[in-house]
Amino acid sequence: MKISIAQLNYHIGNFDGNVAKMLNAVKQAKAEKSDIIVFSELCTCGYPPRDFLEFDDFIKLGEKAIRRLAKAAKGIAIVVGSPSRNPVIEGKDLFNSAYFLADGKVKHVSHKALLPTYDIFDEYRYFEPASEFKVVEYKGKRIALTVCEDIWNVGNENPMYTVCPLDELMPQKPDFILNLSASPFSYDHAADRIHTLKANVKRYGLPMFYVNHCGAQTEVIFDGGSIVMSPNGKVHDELPYFEEVVKTYELDEVVKGKTTAVQSKDKMTLIHDALLTGLRDYFGKLGLKKAILGLSGGIDSAVTAVLAQRALGAENVRVILMPSQFSSDHSINDARQLAQNINVQYDIIYIEDIYEQYMSTLKPHFAGTSFNITEENIQARIRGMLLMAMSNKFGNIVLNTSNKSEAAVGYGTLYGDMAGGLSVIGDLYKMEVYALAEYINKDGEVIPQNTITKPPSAELRPDQKDSDSLPSYEELDEVLFQYIEKQQGPKEIIKMGFDKKLVARVLRLVNISEFKRYQTSPMLRVSNKAFGMGRRMPIVGKYLS
Amino acid sequence: MKISIAQLNYHIGNFDGNVAKMLNAVKQAKAEKSDIIVFSELCTCGYPPRDFLEFDDFIKLGEKAIRRLAKAAKGIAIVVGSPSRNPVIEGKDLFNSAYFLADGKVKHVSHKALLPTYDIFDEYRYFEPASEFKVVEYKGKRIALTVCEDIWNVGNENPMYTVCPLDELMPQKPDFILNLSASPFSYDHAADRIHTLKANVKRYGLPMFYVNHCGAQTEVIFDGGSIVMSPNGKVHDELPYFEEVVKTYELDEVVKGKTTAVQSKDKMTLIHDALLTGLRDYFGKLGLKKAILGLSGGIDSAVTAVLAQRALGAENVRVILMPSQFSSDHSINDARQLAQNINVQYDIIYIEDIYEQYMSTLKPHFAGTSFNITEENIQARIRGMLLMAMSNKFGNIVLNTSNKSEAAVGYGTLYGDMAGGLSVIGDLYKMEVYALAEYINKDGEVIPQNTITKPPSAELRPDQKDSDSLPSYEELDEVLFQYIEKQQGPKEIIKMGFDKKLVARVLRLVNISEFKRYQTSPMLRVSNKAFGMGRRMPIVGKYLS
Repeated sequence: MKISIAQLNYHIGNFDGNVAKMLNAVKQAKAEKSDIIVFSELCTCGYPPRDFLEFDDFIKLGEKAIRRLAKAAKGIAIVVGSPSRNPVIEGKDLFNSAYFLADGKVKHVSHKALLPTYDIFDEYRYFEPASEFKVVEYKGKRIALTVCEDIWNVGNENPMYTVCPLDELMPQKPDFILNLSASPFSYDHAADRIHTLKANVKRYGLPMFYVNHCGAQTEVIFDGGSIVMSPNGKVHDELPYFEEVVKTYELDEVVKGKTTAVQSKDKMTLIHDALLTGLRDYFGKLGLKKAILGLSGGIDSAVTAVLAQRALGAENVRVILMPSQFSSDHSINDARQLAQNINVQYDIIYIEDIYEQYMSTLKPHFAGTSFNITEENIQARIRGMLLMAMSNKFGNIVLNTSNKSEAAVGYGTLYGDMAGGLSVIGDLYKMEVYALAEYINKDGEVIPQNTITKPPSAELRPDQKDSDSLPSYEELDEVLFQYIEKQQGPKEIIKMGFDKKLVARVLRLVNISEFKRYQTSPMLRVSNKAFGMGRRMPIVGKYLS
Repeated sequence: MKISIAQLNYHIGNFDGNVAKMLNAVKQAKAEKSDIIVFSELCTCGYPPRDFLEFDDFIKLGEKAIRRLAKAAKGIAIVVGSPSRNPVIEGKDLFNSAYFLADGKVKHVSHKALLPTYDIFDEYRYFEPASEFKVVEYKGKRIALTVCEDIWNVGNENPMYTVCPLDELMPQKPDFILNLSASPFSYDHAADRIHTLKANVKRYGLPMFYVNHCGAQTEVIFDGGSIVMSPNGKVHDELPYFEEVVKTYELDEVVKGKTTAVQSKDKMTLIHDALLTGLRDYFGKLGLKKAILGLSGGIDSAVTAVLAQRALGAENVRVILMPSQFSSDHSINDARQLAQNINVQYDIIYIEDIYEQYMSTLKPHFAGTSFNITEENIQARIRGMLLMAMSNKFGNIVLNTSNKSEAAVGYGTLYGDMAGGLSVIGDLYKMEVYALAEYINKDGEVIPQNTITKPPSAELRPDQKDSDSLPSYEELDEVLFQYIEKQQGPKEIIKMGFDKKLVARVLRLVNISEFKRYQTSPMLRVSNKAFGMGRRMPIVGKYLS
């Protein structure tokens, strides 16, 4: 028996586009004389469809997609993820289902039992969990159909769940396991995934075909990395990251257990490639081409510019240098040098005249006050506004250049440097931005060395340095990581050896800056706890604040 | 037996403040010789605590609060909602629990069985549902403890759930029902609530004490309206909306079934009072006092200004008139008149010089282009920036003045008129804003009549009217209501008699404006489907767009 897996880049709500792509894959699989082709979770509608699932019209389009695919399921079986309706009045209206299509019809539908409802996931908001488990028989084989999270509770060791779907299916003696996934990227997820698949295969002694999405949906990035695993726990094949691939396997070969080398899981390589995917798909799926960003001479905008140039092409990226009276010469030179290195159009717009006009207009209202953060913010906001004006006039989308450390402690100006349609490096702590800059420069200087080595500064008043108002990024980033990614409280973090006052201050800054993050653009997610849809915090609260 | 109910305004994460408030209520109840005092759902930590629940430290503070309350439970029983830990490894880590405290100890803990996971609710993200149901015995009475949603599946008629907690409890023959709620306000919820309580009482024939939160947590507003219902389905008492009240009842009297008049549920009265609560608590709970907003002479900013003045006091509200060359005289006059009517400080800042400076700075970059939406947005953004500058300098929080119709179709400028820390009327369609203006003027002209009667205009170019680019608000609002509140698709809405092209255009505008709404401030929620945390939509999608 031959089994094909299709790792594709879907588009939420674009049923026609998704089905067309899938029909192409079916064609290829047929040409390769495959018996079964397996797609991913909820691939007719894209993942995550979010509240579109509450529209009957949207569900009908999913049903129509299934009918179209069923028609193509002749001479080949098609396994595809799509929402299905719960016929029982009690419980949620929908299931998150795996359809088995054969002989031009729907032969079987299995439902997802373990519904992730944490971080960016809201599945219990929409779906009823499966309560029945049944293998599908096809061409003399018994097939265990599972959907994503279903295989992440090996032997009931995941404390979140009380059911283990494969344990339920085993008495029916399946021959192999299919898993339809929509498992988002984070820089350590590819390794986790192989670990989990191995644990399953070890427990059940069956070959496994794991099919993931690739591509990005706004901030959520899918890396693909679909896996065919042999019953002995060896990776028979791992599909490339961030690429569409349809590939066919001989089941007997998979059962034999030959190992193929798995791909590098180097953190910066993965993050770099994930961010390019995130950028490309944000623009591509919105029908946009051109980006614009402010280049300050600092590390954050430099890294963002290079990523944009690599993802969208130099001809689609435009950068603006917006010096003020507080900008140092080296900043302008470093920014210009970078623009030249990556061959993107750059313009210089001096903001001093506009700044002076604001000051003059505000003078009667500001009488008796002195220069403070207000004037700093005005500069940042003039820059944000100029970028938005260029964006409005020429159609380039503004890329936000903030990093995760800044976003965490609120070191940024709303509507100023926090403006933009998409935050490219908003899920990278400052030290990770440096590491990514080094990675970018690995084959030669792209980002000027001076941008990497000089002390970070917002340059909003004379001789300002980030270190004037923030602890060192080495220390700050570690405290933030413990609080944000590891959900450690103040006591635990202090126990790790950090200064009590520092911890209290940093955690307080994070909590009181929630109102700023609430109003920022989506941030491409590369960690397993990014700001945005996966971290939901009250604005009005009094916890550690 | 005497039972007290405490309808209080809690503050998320402020365990000390919440407990202090509750201990005061206990004191009062003791003075009134009460046997039991009942508080609300998750009131130690406030509702909704969101991802703070993922912090062990936060849960520990909840446990500490329970210990403090238990100490006070001498000579009186205290029923209080707080998270509790799930001792079993399998399943979610927490329960959403009702503690019964007596004789200085925790006597009993019941867990919530029905976990709302829709709209603004994420309870299954954190909590394991109850699987056991047990009444508490106290002073010879058997008490059925329920938490909020538990009573919203009367006789299993709510299709979302498969369990009916009170059906489970009835075989244990309870004498009365307590319900600890955190049930947010929407303008039709108070009526729904009475309806649901009646259905419960009708089914079980028992008296019921329903205790809600009052006050607001960022955008989520609680109206209180706690209810004591007699076994005959008559409302024995309904506590005032939006106010803290502790009140004691003689159980025998409640059983007898005397009716008290229930409060008016007039939509505009409720909305008006809800928005004042939302404003007051946003400021109060963040430790802020002063607001600032731009006054255009139009209806939206006028209504917002009056609400702010009523909620925060005239001395804490400052308005800025920011006319441009496109502003009409009547706009300035209407705005000034309103400021005088409500006795708030107003200043006029002309934006033309700054606008001209932007144009001059951008001239070389805009060569060969002509006036379009770019220049309109620049004006809106200058206003946003001036407000933010005043805010930074003087500490006044900027109130956003956008309405729901605009937010829906993207008729607003990001970082311009969409700026602000809190959107006051962002959950009111334009026609509702007019109705609220009439309500405000019911005892005499506060908002100048001309502001209400003139055709709406953004005044960003000569002789602009909203109707140039949008359908009439009567029609627009109805289509939006069907799409947003009622989740009707294009086919259903067209079937109601709306023009096909109009429907396609409006729904498309809503979907492609998601990126704008993503970056706006929280909007005080008064409907049952507001933008923000309760409506989660993809930005990158291709559905009806």
